[in-house]
Amino acid sequence: MSYERNNIRKMLGYSSGEQPGSADSIKLNTNENPYPPSPNVLKAGTKFQYNNLRLYPDGNADGLRRAISQLHSVSPTNVLATRGGDELLRLLVTTFVDPGKKIGMTYPTYSLYPVLAEIQDCPIESVELNSDWKVPDHFASDMNDKGVKLCFLVNPHSPTGTFTTKAKIEEIANELDSILVIDEAYIDFIDDQFQSCIDLIPRHDNLIVLRTLSKGYSLAGLRVGYGIAQEELIHPMLTKTKDSYNLDQISQVIATCALEDQEHKRKCSTLIKASRNKLQEGLEKLGLAVAPSQANFLLVTIPDQFQLTAYDLYKELKTKNIFVRYFNMPRLEDKLRISVGLPEQNKKLIKIIEPLLYRPK
Amino acid sequence: MSYERNNIRKMLGYSSGEQPGSADSIKLNTNENPYPPSPNVLKAGTKFQYNNLRLYPDGNADGLRRAISQLHSVSPTNVLATRGGDELLRLLVTTFVDPGKKIGMTYPTYSLYPVLAEIQDCPIESVELNSDWKVPDHFASDMNDKGVKLCFLVNPHSPTGTFTTKAKIEEIANELDSILVIDEAYIDFIDDQFQSCIDLIPRHDNLIVLRTLSKGYSLAGLRVGYGIAQEELIHPMLTKTKDSYNLDQISQVIATCALEDQEHKRKCSTLIKASRNKLQEGLEKLGLAVAPSQANFLLVTIPDQFQLTAYDLYKELKTKNIFVRYFNMPRLEDKLRISVGLPEQNKKLIKIIEPLLYRPK
Repeated sequence: MSYERNNIRKMLGYSSGEQPGSADSIKLNTNENPYPPSPNVLKAGTKFQYNNLRLYPDGNADGLRRAISQLHSVSPTNVLATRGGDELLRLLVTTFVDPGKKIGMTYPTYSLYPVLAEIQDCPIESVELNSDWKVPDHFASDMNDKGVKLCFLVNPHSPTGTFTTKAKIEEIANELDSILVIDEAYIDFIDDQFQSCIDLIPRHDNLIVLRTLSKGYSLAGLRVGYGIAQEELIHPMLTKTKDSYNLDQISQVIATCALEDQEHKRKCSTLIKASRNKLQEGLEKLGLAVAPSQANFLLVTIPDQFQLTAYDLYKELKTKNIFVRYFNMPRLEDKLRISVGLPEQNKKLIKIIEPLLYRPK
Repeated sequence: MSYERNNIRKMLGYSSGEQPGSADSIKLNTNENPYPPSPNVLKAGTKFQYNNLRLYPDGNADGLRRAISQLHSVSPTNVLATRGGDELLRLLVTTFVDPGKKIGMTYPTYSLYPVLAEIQDCPIESVELNSDWKVPDHFASDMNDKGVKLCFLVNPHSPTGTFTTKAKIEEIANELDSILVIDEAYIDFIDDQFQSCIDLIPRHDNLIVLRTLSKGYSLAGLRVGYGIAQEELIHPMLTKTKDSYNLDQISQVIATCALEDQEHKRKCSTLIKASRNKLQEGLEKLGLAVAPSQANFLLVTIPDQFQLTAYDLYKELKTKNIFVRYFNMPRLEDKLRISVGLPEQNKKLIKIIEPLLYRPK
């Protein structure tokens, strides 16, 4: 006998990038940071008082929330610390959207959003991105017309790397009748002329900004993220819907130390941005089309002129122990998403791709 | 404007035991283990490769699930590793119970169960425990009559410490039309003549057993628990409804090491059981009534003959930096739940309680 709810039985679940077993593979498929985390992390981990683990952690993660609030010049009451950005995304759905109500997003987008909607049994309303991957001007009015309760926008966008300006986000927040989640998972890789939209929060009670330590802080393995919003959005998640002790003691300590080393993050991000530009040039020189990216990855099109498809190239690279991401979805079938690796990894990638593209079939 | 769902707006949230700020307080209010975790934990934490945190953890926690499956002689496909027992409880609700459908439990019970039901917008059906805190014989038939989709039983029971035998659990599992969750959070403290019901699982497709490392393994601060059931119950939670990377790298490693040191757990549990019996004797000598307990806590009644109420005693102890748990709920108002501490803490507790009980008002 199957006990699953009907909506769960029908759904497939989130499919994350492959985890190659071998340590010498080049892993450019899940947008991990190629540099190690701050040296503070190692220090914190080794001097941590492991015997204290017999006690429950601080359920509200007050120390970590204080560090986050100082970093962004907001009050701790505007901050929720979560187990990766993923927990925040789930809490937003379970706290603010009744089953059967609609959740809005763009197409394409981060593939976890539709999965979270399915778990809550919420229909999805998608607005197609423009041909240049920009959010169309009618996004907010479409969402209002459809009666969505919550909209997800990932910015910089995944899987394209496109950035939506703060001014444009503010227009959307103004027009939208529902909650607007701006998922800034990749914000640490934007160029200096662009800006986060955290400072829009005091003016918009429907805006919540997601951050994660997985990308910019090289801590994907730690699972810490956070949300910033007006207290009315934070409070019900903090006091009612999150698991009582969502963050263990060690994560709270390590995350706090990592946040305190902004210099390390800036240095690594600067290197990654330089590599991104270089990798883009290299790929373009091979005749591939690359979308302008403000993230730590590139969306690369394999034009028809080549003998092999994007999927062929993905498989060929895999046989050579290089992992990139292929999405078998409309508008993405002829593309690969490639994380920016270390300079030598990016070089090796180019070197391996070139003969594959020009090899006679 | 408030964006909360109606059911969330109306609910209060889980209230956990106080976390005293001072390290020299005696904390007997959240059933933490008074002994430190296995020395393996410290070793694992200090030799962990912190630079690897830049990579995502294993989303399925395969290594940890293998260790759990070996410990219980089941297949890894029968195991889900979770962020504390709390995550498993939440996943059971969100995976198997549609909003509006009923969730069954006893009264009293672990106070998180009704909170999880409220978040999912599920009505609660409660069956009163007998006067000796045993599960009444009509529990399963009542639950079937009410049409519940999932039942929670905590065994040993919280907050009373009462144990339900394996034979009785099997009767309930047999009769019940719905999923039966046996929350064995406190199972590491039962006396030798009693048994876990994990080995009933091959015969019952509706049975899932919860375990946690918080109590027996002294790892409340780490947040690791697990569920064991037939694959049909485990699979949808593992592949669809849990957060993709629910357990960080460090927790997976530390939990695995702790599970491998069964000897340490056994030694500490033996000490705690001896202390429990001694504490019970001491409290009874003072004229207090103590329910027989198979857990690491005692439910203590302050009889009417004394000048002060249970709540008075709770407050008095708090002024003396001793924290115990008071539940302002029917059948519990004249009682305190007291965790078993270190021998010297238990002695101090008795010594401080005595004059309070016999002090003229």
